[in-house]
Amino acid sequence: MAQARIGVTGLAVMGRNLARNLARHGHPVAVHNRTEARTKALVEEFGHEGTFVPASTPEEFVAALERPRRLVIMVKAGAPTDAVIEEFAPLLEPGDMIVDGGNAHFADTRRREAALRERGIHFVGTGISGGEEGALHGPSIMPGGSAESYEALGPLLEDIAAEVDGTPCCTHVGPDGAGHFVKMVHNGIEYADMQLIGEAYDLLRHAAGLEPAEIAEVFRTWNGGRLESYLIEITAEVLAHTDAATGGPFVDVVLDRAEQKGTGRWTVQTALDLGVPVSGIAEAVFARSVSGHGVLREAARGLPGPVPARLQDAGTFADDVEKALYASKIVAYAQGFHQIQAGSTEYGWNIDLGSMATIWRGGCIIRARFLDRIRAAYDADPGTVTLLTDDHFAEALGDAQDAWRKVVATAARLGVPAPGFSTALAYYDSLRAERLPAALTQGQRDFFGAHTYRRVDRDGSFHTLWGGDRTEHPA
Amino acid sequence: MAQARIGVTGLAVMGRNLARNLARHGHPVAVHNRTEARTKALVEEFGHEGTFVPASTPEEFVAALERPRRLVIMVKAGAPTDAVIEEFAPLLEPGDMIVDGGNAHFADTRRREAALRERGIHFVGTGISGGEEGALHGPSIMPGGSAESYEALGPLLEDIAAEVDGTPCCTHVGPDGAGHFVKMVHNGIEYADMQLIGEAYDLLRHAAGLEPAEIAEVFRTWNGGRLESYLIEITAEVLAHTDAATGGPFVDVVLDRAEQKGTGRWTVQTALDLGVPVSGIAEAVFARSVSGHGVLREAARGLPGPVPARLQDAGTFADDVEKALYASKIVAYAQGFHQIQAGSTEYGWNIDLGSMATIWRGGCIIRARFLDRIRAAYDADPGTVTLLTDDHFAEALGDAQDAWRKVVATAARLGVPAPGFSTALAYYDSLRAERLPAALTQGQRDFFGAHTYRRVDRDGSFHTLWGGDRTEHPA
Repeated sequence: MAQARIGVTGLAVMGRNLARNLARHGHPVAVHNRTEARTKALVEEFGHEGTFVPASTPEEFVAALERPRRLVIMVKAGAPTDAVIEEFAPLLEPGDMIVDGGNAHFADTRRREAALRERGIHFVGTGISGGEEGALHGPSIMPGGSAESYEALGPLLEDIAAEVDGTPCCTHVGPDGAGHFVKMVHNGIEYADMQLIGEAYDLLRHAAGLEPAEIAEVFRTWNGGRLESYLIEITAEVLAHTDAATGGPFVDVVLDRAEQKGTGRWTVQTALDLGVPVSGIAEAVFARSVSGHGVLREAARGLPGPVPARLQDAGTFADDVEKALYASKIVAYAQGFHQIQAGSTEYGWNIDLGSMATIWRGGCIIRARFLDRIRAAYDADPGTVTLLTDDHFAEALGDAQDAWRKVVATAARLGVPAPGFSTALAYYDSLRAERLPAALTQGQRDFFGAHTYRRVDRDGSFHTLWGGDRTEHPA
Repeated sequence: MAQARIGVTGLAVMGRNLARNLARHGHPVAVHNRTEARTKALVEEFGHEGTFVPASTPEEFVAALERPRRLVIMVKAGAPTDAVIEEFAPLLEPGDMIVDGGNAHFADTRRREAALRERGIHFVGTGISGGEEGALHGPSIMPGGSAESYEALGPLLEDIAAEVDGTPCCTHVGPDGAGHFVKMVHNGIEYADMQLIGEAYDLLRHAAGLEPAEIAEVFRTWNGGRLESYLIEITAEVLAHTDAATGGPFVDVVLDRAEQKGTGRWTVQTALDLGVPVSGIAEAVFARSVSGHGVLREAARGLPGPVPARLQDAGTFADDVEKALYASKIVAYAQGFHQIQAGSTEYGWNIDLGSMATIWRGGCIIRARFLDRIRAAYDADPGTVTLLTDDHFAEALGDAQDAWRKVVATAARLGVPAPGFSTALAYYDSLRAERLPAALTQGQRDFFGAHTYRRVDRDGSFHTLWGGDRTEHPA
């Protein structure tokens, strides 16, 4: 009966492509879908790619799996995932594994993992990045769950993952929700990265006066250097594209309202709970949100702006923007890795940060040469507190800062919104500041709410009698 | 038996002061505390201020209250509040009221209100702002709950609230959690306001080279103008204060690590759920968080900064900073009011935005002349989409913008972190932008994930075959 090494239920495009990827790698794969037509269509259309074992019912599906069973569910996050788990869990036996390859919130994954662990079943919340194409040709895979489950699952997942320099873009992230947590932060970083690229484009367009096709060339050049990445590459493609209907630049016919699916929002909300400043990701989420507020934008359209002006030297400015982009990108990634570190500590996941950079080098949207640098930073010092202080990054920041400051100042002066560049610079300047105005904040809090303050020269907490003789007293 | 018009249980400093405030206004008030010593101490020390009815047990306490009973609980948010509710609810009768005057999350308040409503009891989640002093001398009070409960409670609350121009700083905010929601946003705005003041101070100190005593004078001057507010007033006081132990400026001996209690974080998390960009509040929360990351700051302290420089004309710069502060403050409040509007729509609260400005004019931390302007904006146009477009504010923004842009540019150039000023300006420029780079974002999303895009010239959603012949197809 048991003929399949692994099974996939939920055969929408992601599930279908993942099953095909497994089959193509020589792994017999059981396939199941609530509506059987999809199962049949998959086998009919792609049956020649490998060994598919179609199953009509959950019972048939489970019976087709070698033990311990490896059951991958590819359905919508939330209630549908719970429903499918409840459908299959009673059919499984201790030692079997349920892999959730959807975009679940890591807190849900933690809850499900704990509940299934009590029933002896391994629940493996797994981040999968790379979209449809990635699922088929090699995604970046971030599995959480027990180390034991990874022993049985890892080889298969590593087989179908993207590969860079002979290393698969898949590793055991850590227990319970670690995989989905890291996938969430990955998406948050992706938001920040895209926002920074958007600002670079906007500045080249509206401050330097370049046309989309010219800006595409700038991005192509950048893609030959340290910014080399999938996102920079496709930015050049999108900007170079001409709209067939109008004959004008494609980017000009696209409605400028960005959409979002929620993982960016989750990243920021979680970071706030963890006390980690991820201002780059937050500004990216807010920027998408602003863009979508049509009524608000319509109302605000007449507000006064600066006297229109164009920069004289577009070439020099483009170089400055490259530096601002690289520096801001370092900050955005430093903030994201700080969040992973904080989550790992909070939940006891013991995540290897360098390995996260390694598995993002291929398969996923933020794949980039840059991630090798991050890997190198953690290799050089596994106790790195922040990526900003790594030798390479610190030098790059030092080298970039004049240009970075100039770009932020130019954006402010010319009225081109650059919230991502600005917040990255403010974060950088905050971190390196000898003193922050937080001292004033604490003084105010003590004044209006007797919240007390600490001193730089003595231990303990203190309160000043602001409403009285203004003497200071230990709190 | 029933001798008290209202009762307060939980006699820590906020509860005690609220009870005294009620008694001082001629309302006989029953008082109760789990540890009876506190009840006795209150009556012994302040019994002469009015009629206190001390109660030893919950039963005695409830029996002392006129019907319908008005029972105010002043205990810690979270589990302690639930515990006290469970202790008292069984002793109450239909039509009685439990008022939660603590800092509850509005979602908890909604849950509690629904549960108690089923038992016929009115649950009135009430924001109270103004700290200890406010509770005693007149706070700003933001009660939620049913309109019926406000009929019985309102007159008492209005009696003890602060009063400005003969109007009490208390009104019925809206059903269930509306009061606690508005109090939460109030606190978020307070975070943003304090952050902006901190940046103004930091710039005057480190860009213009002024000493704290000189900056105190600047703030005193500002407090005579349109920035007149409690926070500006106490900023001058704190900056003018000399530390007795060192003989130096007080602000220099305070440890520059700001603390937070969580309502700022809640505000941002909730705004993200509502899709409202509150970047000013977010940057304020992140700035406090950065300041508290000692290890991170220590690691980053050696990072390269710009060549140190001082501005020549401190006087002109101070005027510019005043304008930047006023403009950024307008943005922060516009974002906060947007959030209240969105919450009101989401939960069907029908909140009168102008009234919120009215009840914040006195009693609370953000009390300011400025709030009269906000009230006036909503009076002039109750359908105001954003405060930015109100005639007064739009004119102020237009007048301020050159200075505002210069200050943000100066901060970037000199390496003084100004995340609040910067994000406010970026928000302003984003809203008034004719086109946003969100169009590029949508193009990228369609490229890597087939997420589709809309067009400016036609209805519908579209997808370009990026991996194929790059033709466009309706999605």
